[in-house]
Amino acid sequence: MQHYLQFTDFTASEYAYLFERAALIKKKFKAYEKHQPLTDHTLVMIFEKASTRTRISFQAGMYQLGGSVVHLTTADSQLGRAEPIEDSARVISRMVDLVMIRTFEQSKLECFAKHSRVPVINGLTNEFHPCQILADIFTYIEHRGPIQGKTVAWVGDGNNMANTWLQAAKLLDFKVNVSTPSGYEVNEKVAVSPEGISAKHYESYSDPMAACQGADLVTTDVWTSMGYEAENEVRKKAFAAWRVNADMMSVANPDALFMHCLPAHRGEEVDADIIDGPQSVVWEEAENRLHVQKALMEYLLLGRQS
Amino acid sequence: MQHYLQFTDFTASEYAYLFERAALIKKKFKAYEKHQPLTDHTLVMIFEKASTRTRISFQAGMYQLGGSVVHLTTADSQLGRAEPIEDSARVISRMVDLVMIRTFEQSKLECFAKHSRVPVINGLTNEFHPCQILADIFTYIEHRGPIQGKTVAWVGDGNNMANTWLQAAKLLDFKVNVSTPSGYEVNEKVAVSPEGISAKHYESYSDPMAACQGADLVTTDVWTSMGYEAENEVRKKAFAAWRVNADMMSVANPDALFMHCLPAHRGEEVDADIIDGPQSVVWEEAENRLHVQKALMEYLLLGRQS
Amino acid sequence: MQHYLQFTDFTASEYAYLFERAALIKKKFKAYEKHQPLTDHTLVMIFEKASTRTRISFQAGMYQLGGSVVHLTTADSQLGRAEPIEDSARVISRMVDLVMIRTFEQSKLECFAKHSRVPVINGLTNEFHPCQILADIFTYIEHRGPIQGKTVAWVGDGNNMANTWLQAAKLLDFKVNVSTPSGYEVNEKVAVSPEGISAKHYESYSDPMAACQGADLVTTDVWTSMGYEAENEVRKKAFAAWRVNADMMSVANPDALFMHCLPAHRGEEVDADIIDGPQSVVWEEAENRLHVQKALMEYLLLGRQS
Repeated sequence: MQHYLQFTDFTASEYAYLFERAALIKKKFKAYEKHQPLTDHTLVMIFEKASTRTRISFQAGMYQLGGSVVHLTTADSQLGRAEPIEDSARVISRMVDLVMIRTFEQSKLECFAKHSRVPVINGLTNEFHPCQILADIFTYIEHRGPIQGKTVAWVGDGNNMANTWLQAAKLLDFKVNVSTPSGYEVNEKVAVSPEGISAKHYESYSDPMAACQGADLVTTDVWTSMGYEAENEVRKKAFAAWRVNADMMSVANPDALFMHCLPAHRGEEVDADIIDGPQSVVWEEAENRLHVQKALMEYLLLGRQS
Repeated sequence: MQHYLQFTDFTASEYAYLFERAALIKKKFKAYEKHQPLTDHTLVMIFEKASTRTRISFQAGMYQLGGSVVHLTTADSQLGRAEPIEDSARVISRMVDLVMIRTFEQSKLECFAKHSRVPVINGLTNEFHPCQILADIFTYIEHRGPIQGKTVAWVGDGNNMANTWLQAAKLLDFKVNVSTPSGYEVNEKVAVSPEGISAKHYESYSDPMAACQGADLVTTDVWTSMGYEAENEVRKKAFAAWRVNADMMSVANPDALFMHCLPAHRGEEVDADIIDGPQSVVWEEAENRLHVQKALMEYLLLGRQS
Repeated sequence: MQHYLQFTDFTASEYAYLFERAALIKKKFKAYEKHQPLTDHTLVMIFEKASTRTRISFQAGMYQLGGSVVHLTTADSQLGRAEPIEDSARVISRMVDLVMIRTFEQSKLECFAKHSRVPVINGLTNEFHPCQILADIFTYIEHRGPIQGKTVAWVGDGNNMANTWLQAAKLLDFKVNVSTPSGYEVNEKVAVSPEGISAKHYESYSDPMAACQGADLVTTDVWTSMGYEAENEVRKKAFAAWRVNADMMSVANPDALFMHCLPAHRGEEVDADIIDGPQSVVWEEAENRLHVQKALMEYLLLGRQS
């Protein structure tokens, strides 16, 4: 039994399969062709943070695969409050086939997975967001072909998205240029410990323009992620020079794409003419959450389909 | 692609089809005969106001049609807060087949629909409640035959229900007599602008007894709709003479029906002996939400079925 | 039409059928063999108290049977607030096939059932929790054979679980030894009124060790049930001697089982070495909620299956 707790849980070969499978599943969806391999399977989604995209993409995705979904929020069940996480994992995993968790600490997710009888998926933690990066790379490949050897510029907060980009770069052999304001750096120990990561896969820049130089993909996130709202005003000042704008895009490759995991704040982390401009693929990127996660759930429950 | 944002979005011919179709779907339901044309279709319901009837009728209805449902509340997604409504519409409508929204301003609903790739249904706004009027007219037809040329008495608040009755009267050629307390009049600009409405389809009365004179259907709503709770005590005084009672029913046609979209407050807007009496069809009316909305969803997704 | 509002709603013969049927349904589940007799049926779950186990077991259970589920919380619908319970029952039961309610007073549940057109299930009230006892007895039978003539020791709060054990003992002819702290006794009037219960089926002990003497099953519950959180500190003192520990298990039969309806507080109502020890069947017990409730829903909707 496999879980999907961080990007490193799959091999490059497994990713190759997943991207190919997601493309096929997407094609069927667009053609209104039924694809219901998960009839009789039930997914439990546990959300300890609010969500729209993750919520809809997992729930609609499971339904489209023929399965069903139980949606728990903290009002129903706050992990570790009424009972130890171990007990919740033991009970829940005896009743259903698959569990998706959005929570705070990665350690809570890992504790649940350790005591679960069924696969567990990371639907975002403070440390990682592998499903989003799965969608982002799939979107890149759809538009530009293989990501191997390419350069991704991450502009902004050294958050769970940045951590996951680092894991992906090392595993799939591309490069991530990261530029964050001082004090908001990527925690390399979290992202790639203990083996470290080479300069071939990761470089850090104090100047966001330098990070975007020659990039094939420029991407960012809100300045204030969920749970950090109290820091909002301080962050607005610290991040002022990390707004993705036409200048940054002009030093990237001419055919560079722009991505954003949404929701976006135009005029903060990105200018409207970029996110709403011709290089932006943010709507495709959001839709692709649906398709890659369908491939992911099918793979975790049924393995490779020939 | 068609939306259902207000009653005027369909023609009289389309309504004739929908009423006929709803009757067939109801008949199948009562006979426990499966009718699942929407297998593989997903509905997203977005509720910014609480709901029981709309919630259950849409969700159970979609399931009974073979489809599936994602239910979002403001805890999951408050339209326009985390991101512009346009962005939510773009993302959500790429993942599912149909969207139902209960919100405040009609303009929010219209903004969503404008940027949606899939049909959008009005599940109640401050201005309109077309699904309820659809159920009410279907219920009238079931009991008394065609509504054309008949007279409906609306007693009470000049709210979204009253607005929608005006739209329906003009479109389906019947008459609505409206009597509201002073200060709670129907906003005719909202209801029938810009073309206006003739006296053949709409008359306003200061005396509720006069409005009920010769009516074929007497109907009302709570004095204080959702969102106006702070005005409760003021409204109780203003509406005291607009309680539907035996006197009002006695001046209506002898075979007049009584309807109420529920929940009802006996002893406020209606006397118990009326809502629980022989002329009341309120339970049929509530159940018919299920059947007409099933016909509506099927029509929006698949068009006319022969 | 039958409801399941308390344990006494079925006969011993019906229980014999249900336990046999639950065993078959469990066997199919474990073999990934589809069993979908409730396609086209919809369950409404109404929760006025939080829940994880009841929530997941009913919802996943209904999905696995091929049906669908609408989940209402107090945010959607607080029974008796916006409208009389009678009205909610009339409306909801016209749209769906089955209703499960977790609420406070048993009388609210009974009022709903009285005005419902479809079967109603008790998902826990202040007075009774029949679905849990159904799972517990099924679990006992799975491990040790018939419960008739056996002895169950209830150690702790004289709550809804204790009440339901009394009902079950009388009906299925086994014995319950109850030991509660002073002031937390079982309300025998609630549990077995008006006919009373004989000493063959029920004895009360002030000393929990005496209650466990020769027991075939030792079971307990949290000291502070939902709704009594304000009494937490007082209860901790009162219940200190009612912790199930190795001493109590040592006076029970050597092959006695330990059960707990969960969530558990290790070091309060039970020692960790008991709940996590070899006599404990708490995870099987929790899982069995799923299987017995599937048998229950099938029986209420379709009757006996040959």
